[in-house]
Amino acid sequence: MNLFYLPGIDEGIHHLDVEESRHAVKVLRMSAGDQITLADGKGTWYFARITNADAKKCTFEVQKKKYFPKKDYSIHLAIAPTKNADRIEWLVEKNVEMGIDEISFMQCQTSERKNINIDRIEKIAISAMKQSEQAWLPMINALKPFREIVQIQADQKFIGHVDVTNPHHLKALAQPKKKYLILIGPEGDFSNGELELAQKNGFEKISLGANRLRTETAGMVACQVLHLINS
Amino acid sequence: MNLFYLPGIDEGIHHLDVEESRHAVKVLRMSAGDQITLADGKGTWYFARITNADAKKCTFEVQKKKYFPKKDYSIHLAIAPTKNADRIEWLVEKNVEMGIDEISFMQCQTSERKNINIDRIEKIAISAMKQSEQAWLPMINALKPFREIVQIQADQKFIGHVDVTNPHHLKALAQPKKKYLILIGPEGDFSNGELELAQKNGFEKISLGANRLRTETAGMVACQVLHLINS
Repeated sequence: MNLFYLPGIDEGIHHLDVEESRHAVKVLRMSAGDQITLADGKGTWYFARITNADAKKCTFEVQKKKYFPKKDYSIHLAIAPTKNADRIEWLVEKNVEMGIDEISFMQCQTSERKNINIDRIEKIAISAMKQSEQAWLPMINALKPFREIVQIQADQKFIGHVDVTNPHHLKALAQPKKKYLILIGPEGDFSNGELELAQKNGFEKISLGANRLRTETAGMVACQVLHLINS
Repeated sequence: MNLFYLPGIDEGIHHLDVEESRHAVKVLRMSAGDQITLADGKGTWYFARITNADAKKCTFEVQKKKYFPKKDYSIHLAIAPTKNADRIEWLVEKNVEMGIDEISFMQCQTSERKNINIDRIEKIAISAMKQSEQAWLPMINALKPFREIVQIQADQKFIGHVDVTNPHHLKALAQPKKKYLILIGPEGDFSNGELELAQKNGFEKISLGANRLRTETAGMVACQVLHLINS
C-alpha cells in the first residue's frame, strides 16, 4: 500500500500537493480511477479514488474514511540534539516507526549542537509515518532551553542518567497506560545543576541497563521500554 | 575512557596496531607513562601503561587485567541485508551497543541485496564495542543461504512474521536465560516456502507489535525485547 499524507484533507482539500502528485502520477504511474489511501496525521485515513491524474495537482474523491483512536498511553521524548545531525534524524525515523506522540529538542549545558533543522526533521517524521502506515503524525517541537523542558507536564517524568546512586531501570519504574515524558541528555551528559532542577520538578532518574549507550540509542531504547510495558 | 581493541593481546602482542597507535599518539596525544585500557573482544580488559609512544607501533606493558563473564543469555540475530547498506550498518552499530552475541546475514528468496561487506561491518562492530565500553566482540558471519541458517541450533528459535494467524508477540514467547536465535526477513518478507522450512526446523513465528517496521528496525526491536526480558 502507498499511503499519502495530506494534513488539509479534513478541511476539504481534495488534491495532493505538488510533491505527492508527482509521486503518484510519475513514480507510481497512477491514473484516474485508481484507489489511494491518505492519512491526515490526526488519526484518520481516507480511502479515495483519483479523479484527475495531474502530475502537479492530482485530484481525488473520498469514498470512505476510518478513524484510529490514540493508544491508551503516550510518549513524549525530549532529547538533546547530537553533534552529528544524522544520528538525531535516524532517532526520529525509528521512534516514529515504533510509534511516538511527541518529540522535543532541548538545549543543555554541555550540548555540542545549538540548532536543529526542524523542517528536515518533520519531513523525516512524515516519511516514517507513511512508511510504517500509521494514522497519527507525532508533534515535533523546536529546540528549547532545558529549564523550559522541565516545566512540561506528564503523569510520569523520567530523566536518563546512570550513576552509582541510580540503580533503577526504566522498566521497573514506568507504569502502564500513562502519559510519559522522558529526557535524554547530550554526549557530555546532564550537568549536576540540570539533574537537580529536573528532580525538583518531579523527574525520576532512570537507567537503561549496564551498557553505555549513545544519545540517540538511549532515546530509542527508552521509548522501546515504554512500548513493551504497554504491549 | 578510551578503550582500545587488540585481539592478539592474550597471545603476547604488546603493541597497538598502526591505526590504533596513530589514534593514541596523534589524536589523543598520549605519551610514555600514560594509562590505557585494552579489550581483547573475548571478555578481558587489560589495564596497561604506554612504554613507547610510537605513532606507528605504540608499545605498552600490562599491569592488571579483568575478565567479564558472558551474560546468562545470548542473542544470535540472522537478518537479510537491506537494499540500502547504511541501514544494515546502523543495525549492527545499535545492536552491538545494546549488546549482542552473534550476527549472521542470510540470503532469502526476495532479498534485494546479494552481497555484504563483512570487513566494513566488522569495523563498525569493533567501533561500537569500544564506544559502548564492552569486553566481548560479537561474532559476525558472512552471508549464507536461508536453508543453512535454519539449521543453526539454539534454545529458542524465532522467525519474525506478521499475519492474521500469528498474534504472538516475541515478548510473550521468549523465556529468560536462553540462547536465542531470531530471523528477520528482507523488505519483501519471507516466502511461504521459507516460513514452512523454518517451522519444520522448530522456529516459532513471532510479531513485534502492530506497527509495520523496516527490516533494520525489526532487527533492533527484536533484540531489545530479548534484553528486556532478561533485565
